[in-house]
Amino acid sequence: MKKLRIAIVGSSGYTGGELFRILLHHPAAEVTAITSERSAGKPITDIFPHLAKLTDLVCESLDPERIAKKADVAFLALPHVTAQEAGYQFHKLGVKVVDLSADYRLSDPAVYEKWYEHCHQYPDLLKSAVYGLPELHRNDIKKASLIANPGCYPTSAILGLSPLLRNKAVDHRTIVVDSKSGVSGAGRSPALPYHYPEANEAFMAYKIGTHRHTPEIEQELSILAGEQVTLNFTPHLVPMNRGILTTIYANMTGKADTGALHRIYDEFYRNEPFVRVLPLGQFPNVRNVRGSNFCDIGVYADPRTGRAVVVTAIDNLVKGASGQAVQNMNIMMGFEETAGLRFAALFP
Amino acid sequence: MKKLRIAIVGSSGYTGGELFRILLHHPAAEVTAITSERSAGKPITDIFPHLAKLTDLVCESLDPERIAKKADVAFLALPHVTAQEAGYQFHKLGVKVVDLSADYRLSDPAVYEKWYEHCHQYPDLLKSAVYGLPELHRNDIKKASLIANPGCYPTSAILGLSPLLRNKAVDHRTIVVDSKSGVSGAGRSPALPYHYPEANEAFMAYKIGTHRHTPEIEQELSILAGEQVTLNFTPHLVPMNRGILTTIYANMTGKADTGALHRIYDEFYRNEPFVRVLPLGQFPNVRNVRGSNFCDIGVYADPRTGRAVVVTAIDNLVKGASGQAVQNMNIMMGFEETAGLRFAALFP
Amino acid sequence: MKKLRIAIVGSSGYTGGELFRILLHHPAAEVTAITSERSAGKPITDIFPHLAKLTDLVCESLDPERIAKKADVAFLALPHVTAQEAGYQFHKLGVKVVDLSADYRLSDPAVYEKWYEHCHQYPDLLKSAVYGLPELHRNDIKKASLIANPGCYPTSAILGLSPLLRNKAVDHRTIVVDSKSGVSGAGRSPALPYHYPEANEAFMAYKIGTHRHTPEIEQELSILAGEQVTLNFTPHLVPMNRGILTTIYANMTGKADTGALHRIYDEFYRNEPFVRVLPLGQFPNVRNVRGSNFCDIGVYADPRTGRAVVVTAIDNLVKGASGQAVQNMNIMMGFEETAGLRFAALFP
Amino acid sequence: MKKLRIAIVGSSGYTGGELFRILLHHPAAEVTAITSERSAGKPITDIFPHLAKLTDLVCESLDPERIAKKADVAFLALPHVTAQEAGYQFHKLGVKVVDLSADYRLSDPAVYEKWYEHCHQYPDLLKSAVYGLPELHRNDIKKASLIANPGCYPTSAILGLSPLLRNKAVDHRTIVVDSKSGVSGAGRSPALPYHYPEANEAFMAYKIGTHRHTPEIEQELSILAGEQVTLNFTPHLVPMNRGILTTIYANMTGKADTGALHRIYDEFYRNEPFVRVLPLGQFPNVRNVRGSNFCDIGVYADPRTGRAVVVTAIDNLVKGASGQAVQNMNIMMGFEETAGLRFAALFP
Repeated sequence: MKKLRIAIVGSSGYTGGELFRILLHHPAAEVTAITSERSAGKPITDIFPHLAKLTDLVCESLDPERIAKKADVAFLALPHVTAQEAGYQFHKLGVKVVDLSADYRLSDPAVYEKWYEHCHQYPDLLKSAVYGLPELHRNDIKKASLIANPGCYPTSAILGLSPLLRNKAVDHRTIVVDSKSGVSGAGRSPALPYHYPEANEAFMAYKIGTHRHTPEIEQELSILAGEQVTLNFTPHLVPMNRGILTTIYANMTGKADTGALHRIYDEFYRNEPFVRVLPLGQFPNVRNVRGSNFCDIGVYADPRTGRAVVVTAIDNLVKGASGQAVQNMNIMMGFEETAGLRFAALFP
Repeated sequence: MKKLRIAIVGSSGYTGGELFRILLHHPAAEVTAITSERSAGKPITDIFPHLAKLTDLVCESLDPERIAKKADVAFLALPHVTAQEAGYQFHKLGVKVVDLSADYRLSDPAVYEKWYEHCHQYPDLLKSAVYGLPELHRNDIKKASLIANPGCYPTSAILGLSPLLRNKAVDHRTIVVDSKSGVSGAGRSPALPYHYPEANEAFMAYKIGTHRHTPEIEQELSILAGEQVTLNFTPHLVPMNRGILTTIYANMTGKADTGALHRIYDEFYRNEPFVRVLPLGQFPNVRNVRGSNFCDIGVYADPRTGRAVVVTAIDNLVKGASGQAVQNMNIMMGFEETAGLRFAALFP
Repeated sequence: MKKLRIAIVGSSGYTGGELFRILLHHPAAEVTAITSERSAGKPITDIFPHLAKLTDLVCESLDPERIAKKADVAFLALPHVTAQEAGYQFHKLGVKVVDLSADYRLSDPAVYEKWYEHCHQYPDLLKSAVYGLPELHRNDIKKASLIANPGCYPTSAILGLSPLLRNKAVDHRTIVVDSKSGVSGAGRSPALPYHYPEANEAFMAYKIGTHRHTPEIEQELSILAGEQVTLNFTPHLVPMNRGILTTIYANMTGKADTGALHRIYDEFYRNEPFVRVLPLGQFPNVRNVRGSNFCDIGVYADPRTGRAVVVTAIDNLVKGASGQAVQNMNIMMGFEETAGLRFAALFP
Repeated sequence: MKKLRIAIVGSSGYTGGELFRILLHHPAAEVTAITSERSAGKPITDIFPHLAKLTDLVCESLDPERIAKKADVAFLALPHVTAQEAGYQFHKLGVKVVDLSADYRLSDPAVYEKWYEHCHQYPDLLKSAVYGLPELHRNDIKKASLIANPGCYPTSAILGLSPLLRNKAVDHRTIVVDSKSGVSGAGRSPALPYHYPEANEAFMAYKIGTHRHTPEIEQELSILAGEQVTLNFTPHLVPMNRGILTTIYANMTGKADTGALHRIYDEFYRNEPFVRVLPLGQFPNVRNVRGSNFCDIGVYADPRTGRAVVVTAIDNLVKGASGQAVQNMNIMMGFEETAGLRFAALFP
């Protein structure tokens, strides 16, 4: 059987490396091209020594025409703005695209421009892009040719809130999303806040009220709620490599009953291969999803305050990025959705 | 000058060791007795090798009468329930008490009984106990003979919320307190959740809606608000040794103006030696208070949602326990409030 | 094709969990039984929540006869001494055994008795056991029915020293082995030295001159050297979950030439699927083998002192335990040696 | 009493911040000037927010003449080469100098040039500089006007080896020094190897056989041995903020008797205020010296191999840099040697 040919575009960051790791074990796809401007001509193992003896691929510069000849699908692991153009070029050349940047996630170009401070060059392509959260948009993903892979924080927040909003179980004006992420979420470029002695034994909130993942979360929740959702989203930096834990608060519209709340989640996610609603009374820990494509969810209805408290855990580089990208590819290409993705977390 | 004589009762845990470290440098007090049932007869350096060459003290068992002869003040670093009796005995013997347990914090014995599942044996003494948060109760602390030293989470939450409630700047029915603590907060007894490979590269929420610090936070905020405050409090475990970062959300009663919000905090804490309201636009990081008695605070008024977002950082073992205990002792004994406490954080 | 049926005996520790994780992806084997005395009757996911949605297996107590009916191979992840009996029983019942404990590693029962302070009940079986380091004993492993899976430290030390001793490139009386291990090497039972706040931001040497892995290292090196090797082995505890880095020193018999030294390693390991001799001038980092079955090696010949410095890195739970156990099973059962084991490290 | 006036030259790195933290509590000295080219005109709290409310000092650019007017002693926390000139200038202006760089440590300019690849501009001043290890050179330090503060690794190695060499207890041709350092040792400038996700859950050796601290260690040991010592020194990077643990191996000239070995250390360091020879059978852990000026030492004589194994632990930023610098200043200025330095480690 001929395998699907994959290009990883922008391979030197953590999501690029993670795509490679995951695709190594994919039964029906194989990486045939990788690009990195800075490392063009060098083996990928120069950037990622952990891949030694597993691949001989050599990085090349980003030339869409050349790459289109050797790849059926391009994963874009580029910075935002840069991905706009690459997405457009590959799409034009008939290469399917899974874009891991933010460039095709916000359906309204004005919202994109406001939060990313760049205008969008390809509003038509943007219109046809599908927001790649399989649990919400599986049918659209099947027909997509350009998928906007969700951000890490949005994945954790939207999966946590979808059952509540779909069931009108909470007042959407009362939502607070408090997220905590490992440091790999900041990327691979060294900078003082991520310098080991500064980030270790440290904990802080950042970009309070202004983080760019806010409109993405609100866009998807507004669709579910049927009206504009505006909420508080606060990201924090945790001294660990991987993982996002998101704690969500919202006033319940009905009685605060944890059993009933749990049933809502159970039903909503019953058939989802990568969402694990934990048994009543249990709450997630990022260590249980480390390196895996699972999203773990725990819920509590507080009778004292009438609020729902929902906690979700994902690996920011897997379900929050590269794993979900492969899940999207699987759906789009008609593969088994779980192909190459049913590996366990690395614990401890 | 004769120094004040101090007994540390229950010295084998982290708060006991931290009391020792701090009091080593106190200009007017010195540790003259330390108790530990398990290590009676052994030098304190058996339990705390980092104190070698700094002290020759030997642990003894807890005999209030014997200790009363060599100590003017007793710091109780005992488990709750146990501290009830010790507090009573020392008080009867005329020894001033700073109790680091929860036993004398909740003024209503019924609330204590409900949350701690033990009844209170000394309701009269409880009535005379003072809740030792200097920023709120300095005058009462001056006259106290038994001080209930606040919990670590409550210190971080109450200091974050006091200016808002005193100024009626938020709707007290909308408060969400999301706290994140280093692992030393769980104490020094080994258990699976704190076993290194389980707690490292991990992050979780725990005791959602049921943590025993909840009534303590609500008690103090209710006094400030002039009516019963009920709120959501969610603690989380962070893979670091020390520090609590607390993120607080509440709906503002007036316009969401960060400048005005900042002024409220600035005024409220202007003369406080251990609260640092950070410059506008800056937010705290636990690394900047590690090992110090400071509480750092940053604020943001979100114009999109009308909510105040307040972030506080303390060292759970210092301002959240042993440092605050020494601060309380200083006030109670008429010393300079900052005596022995103006040391800088250990960074990095 | 009918898959090989596997029993994991003693499944509640880290090596048990890791065996499960690895075997999930094995093309020709599947876990059909797991034992845990304390968790008998409970699903394995109670002990290892990270395996949820990947298995429904329930733990059972250790009854060799019952297990022999549903398993072709038993992996023993039991404490030493306990494994002696289990190994014997399974062997008698015709079940192939891979023993991850130390019980069948030391060919001389007297040496076992001296270091483990228990006598060996089955010296005959011990005689037939094969020391399961594939790079040295592949042919014997093929014919084995009971394999003694090497210890984590010995794997890192022996792989680092074998090319030197086989080639008589160093004076075996001058060997110093300085090893550094992540905390998972200490197992999953909570104890004060591994309590998070004690092990984090900490680093120490332990069991200097007395660690039980010493005779195991010396046994294998003595075979290679053709005479009794006695050396210094010092283990250290590193604040990380996984990984062993071993730094080895020995006086070279000839000229200290790094190029020549590198060629010795290159030749020795050229055809080994799981040993990666790094390019000249590069040295290993445990992060590049985390979660993988690789052993990375870097070498330096110091012209100033005439000593060889060799550095090896493995994941103590994979190449140092469960991964190597599966590699041994593959060889013993006639499978492709790399079956189920060619996964990449989880980086970062 | 007028306090000694201190200038910290080059204040933006970790040793600069640490000097500030320590000197805050010094009874007889105070910081009156701090320089930082990049932050000139800004308050020091911009660089070190943990010092807020403890100082109002503002950074200035390095102008020796201006600084000489307000400082009696200058601590140089500059990169090597740069410190040569600054040391010379301050010395000429009659300001006493404690240089934390390597520029005045190697008494032979040719050795400096070989290892640092720059020639030394001030060989005469170099000749008069004193190597500031108080345990070896206390009398020279008393009379010094320019002190070369030892490197962090050399402090840990030399203190570990001095008693052995002074007593001719080991063969100096057999010394192996295997050191492990926390990441703050690499300084405060972000770079990929110290980027949190690269340095966390990682462990590696680096600069094997070529680290610049090698000649410094050999210089001091050669003086003690009375002949040229050449040894192996291998540094490693540990995922923690602070601390160096050094494990030393050497062949004993006499019988390997741990009791006798321990007595040698006990005698050698009996009167040293900052060296703690641990009780027989105990070994150091960096956590017990974190933030303190102590060096902890444990020893073992291996009867199997005839080697001495010595383990030392220091805080690389305190006894390995800023604390030792203050200790040197105390000696040089005729203060109590322990003034401002008898603080306990921060544990946990």
